Order: sequence, then C-alpha cells, then structure tokens
Amino acid sequence: MGRLPLILHVMEITGVLAFAISGVVDARKQRFDAVGTFVVAFATAFGGGTVRDVLLDRRPFYWVDHEGYVILIFAMSLGASFVLRVVSRVASERVMIGADAIGLGLFSVTGTSLALVAQMTPTVAVMMGIISSVFGGVVRDVLCNEVPMILRDRSPYATCAFVGCWVYVGLTWLQAEQELALLAGAVTIVATRLLSVRFDWKLPS
Amino acid sequence: MGRLPLILHVMEITGVLAFAISGVVDARKQRFDAVGTFVVAFATAFGGGTVRDVLLDRRPFYWVDHEGYVILIFAMSLGASFVLRVVSRVASERVMIGADAIGLGLFSVTGTSLALVAQMTPTVAVMMGIISSVFGGVVRDVLCNEVPMILRDRSPYATCAFVGCWVYVGLTWLQAEQELALLAGAVTIVATRLLSVRFDWKLPS
Amino acid sequence: MGRLPLILHVMEITGVLAFAISGVVDARKQRFDAVGTFVVAFATAFGGGTVRDVLLDRRPFYWVDHEGYVILIFAMSLGASFVLRVVSRVASERVMIGADAIGLGLFSVTGTSLALVAQMTPTVAVMMGIISSVFGGVVRDVLCNEVPMILRDRSPYATCAFVGCWVYVGLTWLQAEQELALLAGAVTIVATRLLSVRFDWKLPS
Repeated sequence: MGRLPLILHVMEITGVLAFAISGVVDARKQRFDAVGTFVVAFATAFGGGTVRDVLLDRRPFYWVDHEGYVILIFAMSLGASFVLRVVSRVASERVMIGADAIGLGLFSVTGTSLALVAQMTPTVAVMMGIISSVFGGVVRDVLCNEVPMILRDRSPYATCAFVGCWVYVGLTWLQAEQELALLAGAVTIVATRLLSVRFDWKLPS
Repeated sequence: MGRLPLILHVMEITGVLAFAISGVVDARKQRFDAVGTFVVAFATAFGGGTVRDVLLDRRPFYWVDHEGYVILIFAMSLGASFVLRVVSRVASERVMIGADAIGLGLFSVTGTSLALVAQMTPTVAVMMGIISSVFGGVVRDVLCNEVPMILRDRSPYATCAFVGCWVYVGLTWLQAEQELALLAGAVTIVATRLLSVRFDWKLPS
Repeated sequence: MGRLPLILHVMEITGVLAFAISGVVDARKQRFDAVGTFVVAFATAFGGGTVRDVLLDRRPFYWVDHEGYVILIFAMSLGASFVLRVVSRVASERVMIGADAIGLGLFSVTGTSLALVAQMTPTVAVMMGIISSVFGGVVRDVLCNEVPMILRDRSPYATCAFVGCWVYVGLTWLQAEQELALLAGAVTIVATRLLSVRFDWKLPS
C-alpha cells in the first residue's frame, strides 16, 4: 500500500504530459506560432481542472501550485518541433493513447474527489470529475474553431470517465482507503478506454 | 396573490424544459451522441445562470441545488429519440416558441433579481439578467461551432429581455411586492417576444 | 512624477476606447445587430480583465466599478454607424494601431500588478497580465466563430506584452515606484509592438 501515492503521482505526471503533448501536436497541425502552441497545450492540460475549480470556487489552481508544469509547457512551446521529433521517436500512437487514457483516468477521479470534499452530491461530483479530464479538450477544440470531439465523436471517452468516477464514488461510500479508491477508479477508466479503442466500441448515435 | 409563487414555479419548470429540449433538438441536428446531447442540453438550460453565478461569485449553482433537473436532462439525453418523438407530437412549433419565451422571461428577471440582491447597480443587474437567460444559447452555439444566434439574428430576443428586466427593476424601485414585480417583468418579456415573432419585428442592422 | 497617475489614466481610457471600437468594427464586418455589437465590443474591451478577475477570484470587476464604460459601449452599439464614421475621419489605421498598443501595454502591466497583489508568483502574474490584455480579443474571435488571431497570427502581439510585463516585474522587484514601473512596462510594450508592426517582425512558425 505504501507505493500507492507514488503510483498516483507517476500517473499524474504521465497525464499532464500526455495532454500537453496532444495540445502541442494539435497546435502544430493548425500551424500556430509558439504563443498559440502554449495556449493550446496549456488549455488541454489544465483547462478542465481550471473550469472545475472555478465552478467549485476552489483556489489555488493546480497549475498555480505546481508552477513547474507551466514552465515545462512554456519550454515545450518554444521547442515544439524538437518535442514532436522526440515524441514520435519514443512514443508510438499506442503509447500516446495509453498515456492519454491514464490522464483521463486520474484527472476524472481526482476531480470527483475534490468535488466530494467540496460537499457536492455524488451526481454533481461525477460531473465535476468528467469536466476535470474532458473539458481541457473542449477548450482546445473551441480555440481551434472546431466542434469539440467529445460531442460528435461516438467513441465512449467521457462514458469511460463516467464509469470509473462511479467506481471511485462507490468505493468511497464503502469507506475504502482513499488512494485505493482513486487507483481503482482510474484503472477502471484506463481499462474501459483501452478496451473501447481495441474493440472499436461506439455509442449509439 | 397566493398563487404567484406557484405561477412562477410553473414558469421555471416550463423554461428549463423548453431550453433543455431545444438543446436536445440542436444536438440531434448535429448528430451528436448521448454525451454531446447532454452537454448541449445542459449548457442551454443552465449555462446562462452558471455564467451569471460565476460573475456574481454566487454559490451554490441552481443545478447543484436542484439536482433533479440534472438527472432529468441526463435521462433526456439517453432517450433523445423518444423525447423528440413525444415533443413533436405534443408540442407544435408555436408551443415551443411560447415555452422558450417563458424561459427567457423568467430567467431574465430572476437573474436581475439575484444581481440586485448581490448589490449590483440596476444597469449591471439588467446585464446579469440578460446573461442568465441568453448566455446558455451562446454557450450552445459556441460548442456547436456556430456564430451565436443572439449576435447575428436581427430578431429582438435579448432586447425583449432588456425591456422586461427594466420593468422589473422599475417595479422593485417602486417597492412593489417581489413576486408581482417578477411576474410583471416576465410577462412583459413573453408578450414582447411573442409579438415580435408574430409581427416579424427586426432590429436595424 | 506628479503627472504619472494622469498619464496612466489617459492610457487606460485610450485602451478601453481602442479595444471597444475594434469590437464595434469587427461586429459591423460580421453584420451583427446592436445586441451583437454590444457583446463583441464589451467582450473585447473587458473580456480579458474579467477572465483574469475570475481566475484571481477578485471582485468587483472593473466594469462593475466603472459603469460609465458600460453605458458608453451601450451607446456606441446603438450608434455604431455614427461611431465608425467619426472614427474613420478622426483616426487613421496608424492611430488605431497605436491606441490598441497603448491598451495592450497598460492592461498587461495592470493585470500583472493585480496578480502580484493577489500573491501570485511572477510567472503566474505575467500570465495573468497577458490574459488581461489579450483574452478579450480571444473571446471576441470565439464569438465570431474564428480561430483567435493571437494563436495563428505570427505577429508578436502577446510576446510584446510578455516582455513588458517582465520589465514591470523586474522594476517592482528593484523596488521602483509603482507608477513608474507600470509606465515603464507599458511603454516597453507599446514600443516593441509598434516596432514589430513597423518592421513586420514575425515569430517563427
């Protein structure tokens, strides 16, 4: 059990990096300059958590408390070409999907957790969890002048987050140890997400 | 006078349903899945009030306090086809325009009321009232990657809200009973909106 | 030194007018009605500062405290054609670029200043400063259904703000008089912005 905080921390770093790199990739596709790359990468990585914190009236923001990430994303934006070269050599598309799933998983359950701490009901807390992980991509898509993928894509992305957040809520209600509940919920999300990609599950339209 | 709270409450339910259903209709047009339908319906119904509450630093949000609506919209998103079949049988386009006008009317004056309670000046309070009723549609249009109707449409939608909010403010200044002032303002908005539709009034471009 | 507050105040009025007028011009281009013109002009002038105040949890908003600007922008929206005729006669494109640069300069450093007062680190404070001046244009572009200029434009707009905000932060750290630091930072931004326009500097893509 002593390794749980470390596992969760590694998942967190993986998630932030995955989301930020996906933002850098999207900014490059749109031929944005370094400013645009920073905005898109930052929005993807921290947009969801920031919207959740504004709704929950919660301060300080995660990125205010962990300034290292801001500086890292700033550096990634200045050296975007370099970042993309390294990433394409080190990480195949499967690795990126897996890292993104880890981000989806962890940010969803931690967002739900923060909402429960803020006295939200389980239903609202699950919504807040999904907003935490998914809304960064929504902000990114709106800035890139596209319909957010999460709305039109029939892949069960937010649905996986939904399932895992309720697993977390259920374990919390059963008084499981916090870190165990977080990990279980996150793993549920990662598993359902990877299965849905592997077997190409689709939501009905 | 005893029936006023009931009338206002019925108007509130009508407004939330009208806005949510219009969101479901728009999501269907865009071929969104259930997740997208929920987001669009929820944004249309509660987006304006949520933006107003964030600006006024007011918690809890209406939908956090009235969770039944969240669950109802969730159910409507899962059974969107069913909802649309029922609605098209029960409610003609006229009924939908009328229900939407009731939502516009009530949300505008209640928003203005909340802003006055928060010590805003009448001018800012009227702005907050219009944001409460109109911004949900703006959020919906931005998510659907369209220029918000309220900006380009020359129909006097926000203008009707503007007129009714000032009627409410005026009656409040004259120390009329709150529920009477709210109803008078809301009815003004509904009447001017329906008249503008009936006679096809247009704002100058 | 006694003239500094007056200079800063004149810069502030210039900036608000410049941003609001640019919003009126954009709204006209899109053929918006008076409602749309008000929303776009208001978003451009006060959108950035409002987003910064929401992130910093800071109230009251500048435009709530300075209602005269709200009423002025309302009047400009009603008489948009008149405003544009006057502006095109009085102000060449150069004057508009200069006035916009003054707005960029002043709003950036005052935003940074407010963030430092709110106990933000210099890095976050500079981000807040740039958000204050630049995000209004982002909100305007999103409402007009365009990719925000600041993201795709390779002109160093936000970069000039970045440089000047650090000048302000540096002078503050050196314990220079507040108004002098604000003016120096703002002038740095105006100068770099005008130079970048004059010599057509471009950021690498």
